[in-house]
Amino acid sequence: MTLLQREILQIAQSASYASKALAQLSSADKNQILSSIANELQKSSNEIIRANEIDLINAREAGLSEAMCDRLALNESRIKAMAAGVLEVVNLSDPVGFVIKEDIRPNGLNIKKIRVPIGVIAIIYEARPNVTVDAAVLCFKSGNAVILKGGSEAIESNKVLISIITRAIEKTNPEIRDAFQLITSTDREAIKYLVQLEGIVDLVIPRGGEGLIKNVIEHARVPVIKHYKGICHTYVDKSADLEIALRVSENAKCNRPATCNAMETLLVHREIAKTFLPKMAEIFNKKGVELRGCSASREIVPSMKHATEDDWSAEYLDLILSVKVVDNLGAALSHIDRYGSHHSDAVIAQDSEVQNKFLTHIDSAAVFVNASTRFTDGAQFGLGAEIGISTDKIHARGPMGLEELCTYKYVVTGKGQIRE
Amino acid sequence: MTLLQREILQIAQSASYASKALAQLSSADKNQILSSIANELQKSSNEIIRANEIDLINAREAGLSEAMCDRLALNESRIKAMAAGVLEVVNLSDPVGFVIKEDIRPNGLNIKKIRVPIGVIAIIYEARPNVTVDAAVLCFKSGNAVILKGGSEAIESNKVLISIITRAIEKTNPEIRDAFQLITSTDREAIKYLVQLEGIVDLVIPRGGEGLIKNVIEHARVPVIKHYKGICHTYVDKSADLEIALRVSENAKCNRPATCNAMETLLVHREIAKTFLPKMAEIFNKKGVELRGCSASREIVPSMKHATEDDWSAEYLDLILSVKVVDNLGAALSHIDRYGSHHSDAVIAQDSEVQNKFLTHIDSAAVFVNASTRFTDGAQFGLGAEIGISTDKIHARGPMGLEELCTYKYVVTGKGQIRE
Repeated sequence: MTLLQREILQIAQSASYASKALAQLSSADKNQILSSIANELQKSSNEIIRANEIDLINAREAGLSEAMCDRLALNESRIKAMAAGVLEVVNLSDPVGFVIKEDIRPNGLNIKKIRVPIGVIAIIYEARPNVTVDAAVLCFKSGNAVILKGGSEAIESNKVLISIITRAIEKTNPEIRDAFQLITSTDREAIKYLVQLEGIVDLVIPRGGEGLIKNVIEHARVPVIKHYKGICHTYVDKSADLEIALRVSENAKCNRPATCNAMETLLVHREIAKTFLPKMAEIFNKKGVELRGCSASREIVPSMKHATEDDWSAEYLDLILSVKVVDNLGAALSHIDRYGSHHSDAVIAQDSEVQNKFLTHIDSAAVFVNASTRFTDGAQFGLGAEIGISTDKIHARGPMGLEELCTYKYVVTGKGQIRE
Repeated sequence: MTLLQREILQIAQSASYASKALAQLSSADKNQILSSIANELQKSSNEIIRANEIDLINAREAGLSEAMCDRLALNESRIKAMAAGVLEVVNLSDPVGFVIKEDIRPNGLNIKKIRVPIGVIAIIYEARPNVTVDAAVLCFKSGNAVILKGGSEAIESNKVLISIITRAIEKTNPEIRDAFQLITSTDREAIKYLVQLEGIVDLVIPRGGEGLIKNVIEHARVPVIKHYKGICHTYVDKSADLEIALRVSENAKCNRPATCNAMETLLVHREIAKTFLPKMAEIFNKKGVELRGCSASREIVPSMKHATEDDWSAEYLDLILSVKVVDNLGAALSHIDRYGSHHSDAVIAQDSEVQNKFLTHIDSAAVFVNASTRFTDGAQFGLGAEIGISTDKIHARGPMGLEELCTYKYVVTGKGQIRE
């Protein structure tokens, strides 16, 4: 065992030990602790900003783009928002202990299916330091210990954030002080070893790009729920209400192009393309969206760039959109089957047969009729805050909130029943 | 790519293709097909028995025990039972299309969470040929294509069974004839390659012993739900009703010792051990159960063999039981935490505080108060037939029935809503 492996094992075992105590905490205790965390975060904003400045200096030296540096930066108001986010989790109902189903069997056995924490959850992510706090408190509220492995650019900020959270807890609940663990090593071996710790780590959630996801699933022996890319489509049928098609498409692309539920490809039925595409292109031009079209699209809107095969499977996360004219619904479905990422896909149509075929055929976490794919989101779906959007089918699909951070167990109460 | 890999890929792709058509079948169509399968199985009993005889001859030549040969053997009445089992699945309600939750959001969006098939499920198992039919029809009813990899001893029986099922289908529904796939290669590379087919195979369920499970999780890139061993405990508290303790312990061990929900270790509170253990030993002696006790148990019942450290983590699947005297509830909980397999554990107690501590502390798929661990079973829990008992926490825990063979998707219907 290497020194690094020993360190990771120690982290995981501490988390596992704390998870047992955490699973027994009452809702009132958890909410009390969340309030302390919010309080401690606000009191410590100078400390957070100082650590964040080191990350920012390193990031600029390493040549990170200004957009990336902005994502990384923390200031008074962002820290206030972070603390407010923690207080919002206080108001979410506690998933633990909820009776999902109850049955009294003919032999008199009472069988309850009860929601319980998963145990130890490892979250591997890139990006912004606010994810550190969000992930930590959502795991905490659902009774799970968490092992966080953030991006190396945010390392100093993350260290301070976790030390503040731990500080807020150890005064009142020293038995769970190890429930928040941060892996600070930037060695890829750390993740490789972590995801093999079967029986200690119960679940790994990788959130990020292809390299990160591949590294996890290649080595994992622990269950994995991927939060992978969103290649989201909007299909405008010939039966579409034009006004809806224009408004929804604009929103799906432009509302927040860097999110995984933003549209990346627009599919348009041939019979409506001549009416729809010029108007759509005008709107996108005004918004600064670069359009990359198939030959048929470019015949209608010659200013589009030429889309290559790679464009159909690209997650731009930017003001870029690929556009394709299709002959019919079947061609749209085949395109989405082939190039989609099973995240979120929408149909704009008035014809209910087209709507239904789309909804039953498309195998994505969320399928939409006459609405923007941007709605795939825990809060928008009424599930409360989310740890992310699962692109897997097992356990959690789509927005993953507090309930999805839990498993269940069967509690069976009898009076001496035996099986015949 | 090797020839074997090409063959496995071809099998998986055929299953994936058929799964799309299968997912769209109505309940009536699926039930009609299940009836045809039952019918075809009964009509083909001679064909099945002939193939099974080849397996039996090979098994005896390979020196398999008579008990194992009996598990392998098929005859008229067993085939009748198999067909009857298929007809029972007709009567189970179709999980596909069920609306788990529906919500109309403040912006008017209608959000439905709908149960849908997972897609392609690979099941890797040892043992009896009836599992082949059970697994095939449960996956079918839940709308999933299945790839079966059974034990090599049952290969001829399995081949015939799958060809009969396929025959029953291809007349009426040629588009789903590939929904039932059997891997006939006995090369370990077959499984290794199969479980890496991300994006084609959606879930792998390994059912069996340590070697099989390890081979799967070591190589898998596809999600895995393990059906692993049951080291089940019964803890007899000092507050136990003696009569219940005796009856339930006997049942948990002797009712069907070869099953994963049978008790393997009996823990007894020191204060009740002197009264309870001699009576318990007498019952177990009559039943031919070999007892292996700790020193304290052997002081009370000297005829017990001496339990070694290995006994505490042994899954005997036989008429053998390890027995340990513990000082208190805490010691019982620690023992189960350390040696248990998180399958099924029971407490026999009248003291409700003891009951509650046991139920909340023990992290197993099923926890029992005053009842036999033998009840952990889909039918006994009222879930209908089961594909097996999951020992994992993610997606499905405990008995895995038709609902657990499904995932869900969000279907969102709007009137042009956009996100602000």
